Amino acid sequence: MIDLRSDTCSQPTDAMRQAMASAVVGDDVYGDDPTVKQLEREVAALLGKEDAVYMVTGTMTNQVAIRAHTEPGDAVLFDQHAHVYILEGGAPAAFSGVLPRLLPGVRGVFSPKDVLDALGSPHRFFPSTIPAPIKLLCLENTHNIGGGKIWPIDRLADVCDVARSKGIVLHLDGARLWHASAATNIPEREYAKHFDTVSVCFSKALGAPIGSALAGPRDFIARARRFKQQIGGGFRQAGIIAAAALYALRNHRERLQEDHEHARLLANGIAGLPGISLDVATVETNIVRFGISSLPAGEFVDQLHARGLYVLPSGADGVRAIPYLNISRQQILEAIEIIASVAEEHATAAKESAYQVGVQKGAVY
Amino acid sequence: MIDLRSDTCSQPTDAMRQAMASAVVGDDVYGDDPTVKQLEREVAALLGKEDAVYMVTGTMTNQVAIRAHTEPGDAVLFDQHAHVYILEGGAPAAFSGVLPRLLPGVRGVFSPKDVLDALGSPHRFFPSTIPAPIKLLCLENTHNIGGGKIWPIDRLADVCDVARSKGIVLHLDGARLWHASAATNIPEREYAKHFDTVSVCFSKALGAPIGSALAGPRDFIARARRFKQQIGGGFRQAGIIAAAALYALRNHRERLQEDHEHARLLANGIAGLPGISLDVATVETNIVRFGISSLPAGEFVDQLHARGLYVLPSGADGVRAIPYLNISRQQILEAIEIIASVAEEHATAAKESAYQVGVQKGAVY
Amino acid sequence: MIDLRSDTCSQPTDAMRQAMASAVVGDDVYGDDPTVKQLEREVAALLGKEDAVYMVTGTMTNQVAIRAHTEPGDAVLFDQHAHVYILEGGAPAAFSGVLPRLLPGVRGVFSPKDVLDALGSPHRFFPSTIPAPIKLLCLENTHNIGGGKIWPIDRLADVCDVARSKGIVLHLDGARLWHASAATNIPEREYAKHFDTVSVCFSKALGAPIGSALAGPRDFIARARRFKQQIGGGFRQAGIIAAAALYALRNHRERLQEDHEHARLLANGIAGLPGISLDVATVETNIVRFGISSLPAGEFVDQLHARGLYVLPSGADGVRAIPYLNISRQQILEAIEIIASVAEEHATAAKESAYQVGVQKGAVY
Amino acid sequence: MIDLRSDTCSQPTDAMRQAMASAVVGDDVYGDDPTVKQLEREVAALLGKEDAVYMVTGTMTNQVAIRAHTEPGDAVLFDQHAHVYILEGGAPAAFSGVLPRLLPGVRGVFSPKDVLDALGSPHRFFPSTIPAPIKLLCLENTHNIGGGKIWPIDRLADVCDVARSKGIVLHLDGARLWHASAATNIPEREYAKHFDTVSVCFSKALGAPIGSALAGPRDFIARARRFKQQIGGGFRQAGIIAAAALYALRNHRERLQEDHEHARLLANGIAGLPGISLDVATVETNIVRFGISSLPAGEFVDQLHARGLYVLPSGADGVRAIPYLNISRQQILEAIEIIASVAEEHATAAKESAYQVGVQKGAVY
Repeated sequence: MIDLRSDTCSQPTDAMRQAMASAVVGDDVYGDDPTVKQLEREVAALLGKEDAVYMVTGTMTNQVAIRAHTEPGDAVLFDQHAHVYILEGGAPAAFSGVLPRLLPGVRGVFSPKDVLDALGSPHRFFPSTIPAPIKLLCLENTHNIGGGKIWPIDRLADVCDVARSKGIVLHLDGARLWHASAATNIPEREYAKHFDTVSVCFSKALGAPIGSALAGPRDFIARARRFKQQIGGGFRQAGIIAAAALYALRNHRERLQEDHEHARLLANGIAGLPGISLDVATVETNIVRFGISSLPAGEFVDQLHARGLYVLPSGADGVRAIPYLNISRQQILEAIEIIASVAEEHATAAKESAYQVGVQKGAVY
Repeated sequence: MIDLRSDTCSQPTDAMRQAMASAVVGDDVYGDDPTVKQLEREVAALLGKEDAVYMVTGTMTNQVAIRAHTEPGDAVLFDQHAHVYILEGGAPAAFSGVLPRLLPGVRGVFSPKDVLDALGSPHRFFPSTIPAPIKLLCLENTHNIGGGKIWPIDRLADVCDVARSKGIVLHLDGARLWHASAATNIPEREYAKHFDTVSVCFSKALGAPIGSALAGPRDFIARARRFKQQIGGGFRQAGIIAAAALYALRNHRERLQEDHEHARLLANGIAGLPGISLDVATVETNIVRFGISSLPAGEFVDQLHARGLYVLPSGADGVRAIPYLNISRQQILEAIEIIASVAEEHATAAKESAYQVGVQKGAVY
Repeated sequence: MIDLRSDTCSQPTDAMRQAMASAVVGDDVYGDDPTVKQLEREVAALLGKEDAVYMVTGTMTNQVAIRAHTEPGDAVLFDQHAHVYILEGGAPAAFSGVLPRLLPGVRGVFSPKDVLDALGSPHRFFPSTIPAPIKLLCLENTHNIGGGKIWPIDRLADVCDVARSKGIVLHLDGARLWHASAATNIPEREYAKHFDTVSVCFSKALGAPIGSALAGPRDFIARARRFKQQIGGGFRQAGIIAAAALYALRNHRERLQEDHEHARLLANGIAGLPGISLDVATVETNIVRFGISSLPAGEFVDQLHARGLYVLPSGADGVRAIPYLNISRQQILEAIEIIASVAEEHATAAKESAYQVGVQKGAVY
Repeated sequence: MIDLRSDTCSQPTDAMRQAMASAVVGDDVYGDDPTVKQLEREVAALLGKEDAVYMVTGTMTNQVAIRAHTEPGDAVLFDQHAHVYILEGGAPAAFSGVLPRLLPGVRGVFSPKDVLDALGSPHRFFPSTIPAPIKLLCLENTHNIGGGKIWPIDRLADVCDVARSKGIVLHLDGARLWHASAATNIPEREYAKHFDTVSVCFSKALGAPIGSALAGPRDFIARARRFKQQIGGGFRQAGIIAAAALYALRNHRERLQEDHEHARLLANGIAGLPGISLDVATVETNIVRFGISSLPAGEFVDQLHARGLYVLPSGADGVRAIPYLNISRQQILEAIEIIASVAEEHATAAKESAYQVGVQKGAVY
């Protein structure tokens, strides 16, 4: 089975397993784990922030960030397809009590004007107690539902400048920030410097089995540790898994370009197939999203699965495939063949399609 | 000062004051207030529901309804301009912990397909634990930000049928439902029958000083009373104000057509003025919303205020004016003159405008 | 029926009804109601605070105060029988997300040492992220479950001083503060000055049909208005009911001594009856709480009710009776006779009882 | 340094490291991790429950259990020193919105009567909307703050029977349940069968680096997975750490008796020292709690630390020491010497002390 469902499906390498087996550990709740501390220092340095805290998942880093930046009844700006809004179990509302206000955007990228429109122009005649006050803006780079879209650095800077000028705090969901840097050669800290806080993930892109980190000002990170503990994130000898994250951080960032090549290879290999809508220019990093018009996405995916290719449907007419660490060029070539065989079997049902990455409504993943 | 900011600004009539002065009352927390009970019975009957509960505000009825229908981490479908989403202090998230998922729609009216798109087509490959499960759909009729838009009854029925067939619970924010019935002669219960629960307001449209009600199944209303009490809505001799609500309910529903006439009069009187964008066909009930292009809405509103007309800006380029109980035809004529005088003073700055009611982004009220 | 269930059962007087009928009102959400504003000014002045906000109930004032002083995950100190902890629908947790930490106390009165014990002595070896940080202390005067107990002013001052010296914010649940001042001649502001914020109720003691107020620093009250609106407390022409509250505030504080006399009269009249445990020294204001040993409290209360006296059971063996505005000396005398008749019928079942006001465990009201 | 702060400070053994290094893993969010699934099956079987879910910490298993059993505004019964109430960051309120109602108890053990007292006897005269309804009872066995106290199985059964007969759901915080079974030879499932759900910890007692599990009915565990994911507990290749937990579960339960011997050895060695209050009969498992009267606990602990012994202060006059996996008999003997040397240096300041395990007020850990 060729598993392209998600880069979260990566298997730890032998070197990672070795790092875990020999990790020096302590009780992280007591602040005693040297491997965790080392990881936190390296992440903070890499992102140009004062401090960082290691947590068990990207969802936890994002949701603790939102919690620590806000109080219930505040509003938070998300792009309409933000992972942190759609794909984290309702946590912005359930855990932080914040109201999402949505920015339009295409493939996760919005404009300074979108931010200004959302903030509006309060007038003394209208009671300020009625709408939820907007406190925070979250931005995702690269953007998952947007097909691994990289935020143009100038656009990102402009958006952040406008928000900051209006007193809005800024958080970057950088679960796949490594991909942006690998593709553009713009260092992570150059993206990060526009934000108060940044979350990054060692599991999604870098291939570590478990773990994410949240970086920001020292006081903020101390506050984040409180909420991490509160929701049960206070793991003990976390150095075991931090050791793999540290290895991945030190060794797997550069190799991401290989995943990008595999993604482009896949995209080019299937772009012209009957019933498949795919603009290869949208494949900027490791995520390939395409439309399928000849049968429902769920059925298409089932048929691929029956032939040995494991991908995810995304909405009624979309498909997602993501190469990663353990996926070889050969497997990509086989994946293309499998997709081609199914697409061609249904060629007569292929329709004109309006599919575009990152603009669908409703339940896309 | 002619005050067209909101129909919530109405003054109680002498008859209402008399009703309040002579109301028979008891402690409503102990279930002892006969006037409250009478009001609750009449509202339930009017809406064709088993039971109803009187509360202090429309926000409370809506937010208690959401709370009683859901648990934290559930998602709720709102149209993107729903009062209950935008203009109730973030309460869906802060009080109920629910994640808003937004439906597009124009002037608050969306389609069955919008609902289906939002619900998507879950597939076994994608973990059901990741997105927040959608439990409830809220619909607003008439629609405030949509300019008092009446939901076509067939569209409303279709939307509710589709949602119900997918297991979604339905709540109607009927704060201004009276206006829909006054304009269409479709009884309130005909709208209400498509929903599990309905909130109505005695203050906004009918002119009572205080109060709203939530109607629905008996068990649900018992549950709602728990949350009403929890957030401090358990008022004592509430019969005092319920008496005014009861009077308004019995006597002020038919006269709403007068407000509709005043709204049309106002709209027709200003539709052609320089810098003003107003499609008079959008004035279906008592709300007049129009665009202003010759100066920022806030400044325009300030200048009207200086000349004796009190209206609200809505976003950067919109204005809202609402006639009600205490507003006479003469005052509408004067309001037209005031608007005309300011519009003409700024005529040279009038621009082509894309203003359309109920489609603006961001901070509209 | 003589109704001594609660002073919340009072009926508005003719003068109050007159005040309501002629009240000058506006839309309070827009800050336009002159009667509400007048009430807020007078309350703030009386309590020696910068500002005050009128709300619909005592539960709302208390819970909005807790919400505005804290964030979720904070701990709040309550005495174990505090109304705000036990009798407000779980709102401290449900609405504010705060963890109650309980102080022992007898009849609601605890000591500076109790506060210090609760705060403990944090040590650097123990992670500060593990326990919920204590941010707020709530104190209730007079104390409902404590039988209308008045906090000795020196004890109150000592407790507040100790808490403040440790950085703890202080809120006074003064729903029945009027009674403390009426009994001791210590002005309300002398009690209030030890607290950051104070809630008072016009309905419970003073006989107004509806309403409470929260007083404190100007910024805090502005913040409180936000949460009042969020949970649906933003009533419109609230001046109607504020007029009655204003009348009660101006005219009914001095007459509370009459209720105190009635309470003592009742207590003295029943203290020696078979099966009744009542220390008359515990009747300091208008609340009479006593034990009943000859039959379960619920049955005892049912039998009183059958003979024309309406009181509440409180736990398995306690009874609560509260005289107020509309209760005459004659009715108290009749109440004594009714209680005597039932007590004597069950005289043979009377047992030694350990009943003491304000020390029971579990479900007391 | 001899580290007796907590059994959470244990280091993974070589065998555990080996198990982690060779673990077969998959993406647990997609339900694909075979090692996690194996662990969940074995835990469920051991506890006699239909299903189990592996999570990252004991706090997460307990708080997800509370969340999944309740809704905001419900009340939950805890003993006054319950870990889940005091030492989990306020999560019952912050994450689940539930109000803690406290049971008295000594060393965490309460009686059926305590439960009945807490539930009270509701009467139709008192509005059921006012108090928070009690839905859940949590019980901790062995009890941490109670000094590792084992619940007598008959008492536990009686308490559960009474609660269940009143419709209360039951959760067992069994973080150290292994110790109860190791000491009494009563299998874990015999304790567990009285509860709807049970949490157990692999890190605290058994020495695994990370991880806990929650067991219960199949539907409940499915629901728990939703909340696990929502708060960021959805780790990916969790089999890495589950492998160590599985090893610990299979191999380290029997050896706990060794820790119990070490605890008794320690207790007997220091019980008579000047200023130390310790009833050796209270040392039933692996936790040793004692009073110190000759100097503040914090200073005492500092002085022990300076001489190479690391323990925790617990409140102003208490100390906690916990032997575990990596602590040898020799280290216990050295710990006794260190404690003796400090105690004797301060012998002249030793005072009569009222210290008793599990009855202190306020901030004990």
